[in-house]
Amino acid sequence: MALNPARFLQDLHRLRSFGASGVGKGVVRPAFTAVDIASRQWLASRMQEAGLEVHFDPVGNLFGLNGPKSLLIGSHSDSQPEGGWLDGALGVIAGLEIARASKEDGGPAISVVNFQDEEGRFGILTGSDVWTGQISLAEADALTDTDGLTLGAARARMSGRAREFLPHDMFSGFIEMHIEQGPGMDVSGDQIGVVSDIVGIRETRIRICGRQNHAGTTPMALRQDAFQALSDFNQRINARFGAVATKATVWTLGHAELSPNASSVVPGQARFTLQWRDGDLARLAAMESIVEDVAKDIAQERGVEVEVGPVGGIDPAAMDDRLKAALQQAAHDLAPSKWRDLPSGALHDAANVARVMPTAMLFVPSIGGISHAFDEDTKEEDLIKGLEVLNRAALSL
Amino acid sequence: MALNPARFLQDLHRLRSFGASGVGKGVVRPAFTAVDIASRQWLASRMQEAGLEVHFDPVGNLFGLNGPKSLLIGSHSDSQPEGGWLDGALGVIAGLEIARASKEDGGPAISVVNFQDEEGRFGILTGSDVWTGQISLAEADALTDTDGLTLGAARARMSGRAREFLPHDMFSGFIEMHIEQGPGMDVSGDQIGVVSDIVGIRETRIRICGRQNHAGTTPMALRQDAFQALSDFNQRINARFGAVATKATVWTLGHAELSPNASSVVPGQARFTLQWRDGDLARLAAMESIVEDVAKDIAQERGVEVEVGPVGGIDPAAMDDRLKAALQQAAHDLAPSKWRDLPSGALHDAANVARVMPTAMLFVPSIGGISHAFDEDTKEEDLIKGLEVLNRAALSL
Repeated sequence: MALNPARFLQDLHRLRSFGASGVGKGVVRPAFTAVDIASRQWLASRMQEAGLEVHFDPVGNLFGLNGPKSLLIGSHSDSQPEGGWLDGALGVIAGLEIARASKEDGGPAISVVNFQDEEGRFGILTGSDVWTGQISLAEADALTDTDGLTLGAARARMSGRAREFLPHDMFSGFIEMHIEQGPGMDVSGDQIGVVSDIVGIRETRIRICGRQNHAGTTPMALRQDAFQALSDFNQRINARFGAVATKATVWTLGHAELSPNASSVVPGQARFTLQWRDGDLARLAAMESIVEDVAKDIAQERGVEVEVGPVGGIDPAAMDDRLKAALQQAAHDLAPSKWRDLPSGALHDAANVARVMPTAMLFVPSIGGISHAFDEDTKEEDLIKGLEVLNRAALSL
Repeated sequence: MALNPARFLQDLHRLRSFGASGVGKGVVRPAFTAVDIASRQWLASRMQEAGLEVHFDPVGNLFGLNGPKSLLIGSHSDSQPEGGWLDGALGVIAGLEIARASKEDGGPAISVVNFQDEEGRFGILTGSDVWTGQISLAEADALTDTDGLTLGAARARMSGRAREFLPHDMFSGFIEMHIEQGPGMDVSGDQIGVVSDIVGIRETRIRICGRQNHAGTTPMALRQDAFQALSDFNQRINARFGAVATKATVWTLGHAELSPNASSVVPGQARFTLQWRDGDLARLAAMESIVEDVAKDIAQERGVEVEVGPVGGIDPAAMDDRLKAALQQAAHDLAPSKWRDLPSGALHDAANVARVMPTAMLFVPSIGGISHAFDEDTKEEDLIKGLEVLNRAALSL
């Protein structure tokens, strides 16, 4: 029996009944909640029906295995506290349908994976972080959610089903399908995006110390105003980042606090966070240098102190050329002139898996660019197109 | 018993124990906080001990009355979120000491006042605004602090003590003593400043609504970033205010809040307060037009909503010639060649009271020009000189 889009859509809609929000197609299915565990058990039963070997690892990642060497396809089915029905669920059900169809047809060996806690209830991409060795299970067990529940306590809820961690070398590669979660393809009208790389992130907290003073009696020329320094810093960052940025580069000043934050007081202090994302390590580093330069200039010209905190983040992950080429060819065949290469501005499990095996990703559009919200959606014809492109690429490998 | 400088200093230091910051002599005593209410109750007891009749009005202004017709002396004891120990407290305790000494000596009838919320937690000079009829009590009750608390709810905390509003004609005039809060006299070496006039002030709260979005997947060109709109607004205000300003004109963006204020989210909303001050009514109005123009431009060019709230404030106020002459004569007698006339760049309750009775002000120096900060201070000899000049002027009237 060949690829069955109707069965794929049916399973995808069935999955959203676990933790249905009652608002549109939205879901509330954070990692290790009762509905998350129930949905993983249902998925395991669907894998078993397809002739795949069900395997839960200690951190709750669910695999549907097909033999000692296979291509791995999947994503994650946990959601944000207010999540959309597609997000990672799409990639899991696509993997299930392709593995199932290939098994039925005697095609190539394809396995499925459903990572746990990609949405970072406890960590960052917790399930794939542990499986790929970014952090140890012991470190992960100590992570807590915002209510103080530890991952150790949460994963005990699934301990009856857990077996060992699987070796990476039983998979020839990994392909993840996901919604874009941004407006790019919805605006351009493309149906398929082949991910070139998953961007890296850099983030730092900055503190500007000026001189707190009376807003009526301090002449403009004598002020060391921390907000004015912040505003100036921001304008210069925009100009200088703009000069090195590509169209895909983004930066955000999303958090800022003034002190004492009173209308009649010249602000003495401003604390804020600057984040920037790009697929190129060298560009991320160049932007870091710009931050340091601008901080020095602002301090010198405005007579304030500017402290740039440690710069943390995650390195970009390039996608594998061979897998990417297979996706490009399939997109070219099945969605001619309606596909493009693009970087992923959001983080995905594929960024972790790329460090241990050849990895690629494809995107389908998000209507209105909306994600991590109950009204997240994608046209069914685009979901099916994504499934078909992924299937053709998988069969060609 | 004559004027007692030691008792005056003792009371002044006792007052700073209410809401002591633990940093230098600083205080944290905003209007209607528990420590503000406690300090007003303590002041009331000191007034009572001095033989004055204690009277709280509905908006929390505290009077220590001496008969049906008296000269009123005072200021305010509430502070900024991070305040100095002198600010208005100096004028309140000076009034207390002069009224007390005059009562003891059988001198002229002198009453004391401690206005509420001069620092504008809720409004501008809220207590004297309401008493002098700049706004009604009902209007004031609807004012909110930056956390959304209404003045109506805040003043209910003192409602058990409140009596009626006092008629203005029971006072022959008002004199307010205050620290300069700027560097002028500290630089010139003067001990006493006799205020010629008080600048006017305008203030408005502004809200920018953009679109909250994912900081990784939303391209720079498609963002409606409320913080970027705020930063742009600020730069344009600086340029356009700068073009109409004199050397004495000042403006401040001292309060700003982003929402959701998270490093990985493009800010959807920014709320902030803009304040400007000048001695000329026409210039204040021209600056208000600039604010409206810039708000419109930002909204149009950036695709965000910009809501400019009501513009509140107080008009410039001239001081009374007769009271001013009494202060000049006393300064001439007690601080020869160490006093001068000067305008007030800061707003004071005296600006309101000047609209309902003859009013004057005197200043003592601020070390380093520092105010509205924990390290605000004045030499004790200057504090006592101010007390003596004010006392001599009061006795001469």
